[in-house]
Amino acid sequence: MPQHKISPDSPIGIFDSGIGGLTVVKAVQACLPSERLIYFGDTARVPYGSKSQVTIRKYGREDTELLMKYQPKMIIVACNTVSALALDVVQQTSGEIPVIGVLKAGAELAVNQTRSGRIGIIGTRATIYSNAYACAINEIDRNIEVFSKACPLFVPLAEEGFIDHAATRLIAEEYLSELLSKQIDTLVLGCTHYPILRGMIESITGPGIRIIDSAEAVAGKARELLSAESMLNPGTKHAVPHLMVSDLPQKFRELYRLFMGTEMPDVELVEM
Amino acid sequence: MPQHKISPDSPIGIFDSGIGGLTVVKAVQACLPSERLIYFGDTARVPYGSKSQVTIRKYGREDTELLMKYQPKMIIVACNTVSALALDVVQQTSGEIPVIGVLKAGAELAVNQTRSGRIGIIGTRATIYSNAYACAINEIDRNIEVFSKACPLFVPLAEEGFIDHAATRLIAEEYLSELLSKQIDTLVLGCTHYPILRGMIESITGPGIRIIDSAEAVAGKARELLSAESMLNPGTKHAVPHLMVSDLPQKFRELYRLFMGTEMPDVELVEM
Repeated sequence: MPQHKISPDSPIGIFDSGIGGLTVVKAVQACLPSERLIYFGDTARVPYGSKSQVTIRKYGREDTELLMKYQPKMIIVACNTVSALALDVVQQTSGEIPVIGVLKAGAELAVNQTRSGRIGIIGTRATIYSNAYACAINEIDRNIEVFSKACPLFVPLAEEGFIDHAATRLIAEEYLSELLSKQIDTLVLGCTHYPILRGMIESITGPGIRIIDSAEAVAGKARELLSAESMLNPGTKHAVPHLMVSDLPQKFRELYRLFMGTEMPDVELVEM
Repeated sequence: MPQHKISPDSPIGIFDSGIGGLTVVKAVQACLPSERLIYFGDTARVPYGSKSQVTIRKYGREDTELLMKYQPKMIIVACNTVSALALDVVQQTSGEIPVIGVLKAGAELAVNQTRSGRIGIIGTRATIYSNAYACAINEIDRNIEVFSKACPLFVPLAEEGFIDHAATRLIAEEYLSELLSKQIDTLVLGCTHYPILRGMIESITGPGIRIIDSAEAVAGKARELLSAESMLNPGTKHAVPHLMVSDLPQKFRELYRLFMGTEMPDVELVEM
């Protein structure tokens, strides 16, 4: 089990299957502006959400091993699919370093927010079929009813910039219609790409349904945990995240802008 | 450079980034029913078409190394992206074994079929940005005008079974409108997934445009080449292909049916 000395100045390691996890980087930056962030996006093997549990667990272990080289004080699993299917592998690989995943953070926030006790979850096929959100929610409150729907086309539609497109609306209406018929009052965006489509999704779900963004939930949870352990970085400087990817396709710059709303900084290419 | 003894009874190795290459397996089976086929689909790292040239070349080399263990008499690159960006790597890795790719075969057939000398190409982002189809076509006839369009949403739409969906029609109309304004008379389906959407595409392009399916083109070329070298398998039995994949997701069985039109046989899982 790897061990290293950690201090408040140690970085927070964040990883995702690709660049969707940048929504988590953005949320953590907003919430903890002094923290040093190290992000890895496995762009050479993205997506994870359509792959098998065996492969997702292997990739999760390798991604964690990469981040551990930077001696982080915490690991945030920005990938819902890894959070759902391989959080134990990440925890084993990172030893005593605390690990938090978007899934549990999103589940907790959803439980706090629902009034009717009826929660909807949307995510990739792997996340939804794992039933991990329902388990995490019912572990907190077994009386809550959870309704899930895999929305596999949302990732490519978001990445292609089909944000306000009529085709996206048709597909979103189809994906969401079943959940809407269940009288949910809370809907968890269980995939880091989905916040890009939040406007479209909200226009279909309407004002009666509260949207839970797992990225914001996990950022709040990271602050809570670091604070409780007196591990918040005391610095006041706004730190620039260290970005690593396993592939740098032509489209990366454009996607960075879409997710972060700023121009792409230097990015390190690593081989997996 | 790997060397091995080949005979008419040696298998034909076929690989693709995922399962789209099964359209090539199907076409080769129809055209050469006695040949032993070994297929590898890199489902753990699919898709290639949105990744960089460096990564595509690395994957292409590794895929070829895997097939070479089976001592094939020919390698067919069923992946348009690898055909466009890494055919030289495949050739280097396979030594003196003949290598044919869907791209050149599709380009040749398109040149034979066009009357107006105006050809359209659709494919993944990596294939289209490489300009490889235009180069291959203009190497045969420099007077032909080539018009290209990347259609990145076609692969996920096909895999999700959105074959006759109104959203797919909206997206297809948008993708194809520019090509249609160029008065092409021939359109190359430059991605192995696109034959699944052929009906939809034809309903938009209309009867005046000839559709070229690269899978059929490469199967015809394989027969031509094996025949010229007296390497056709003399057997008369219909051989069952040996299928290998690097990941076996839940959805695989359903996709196999979509691509092959039959139930999935045994599949070997290999680690890449």
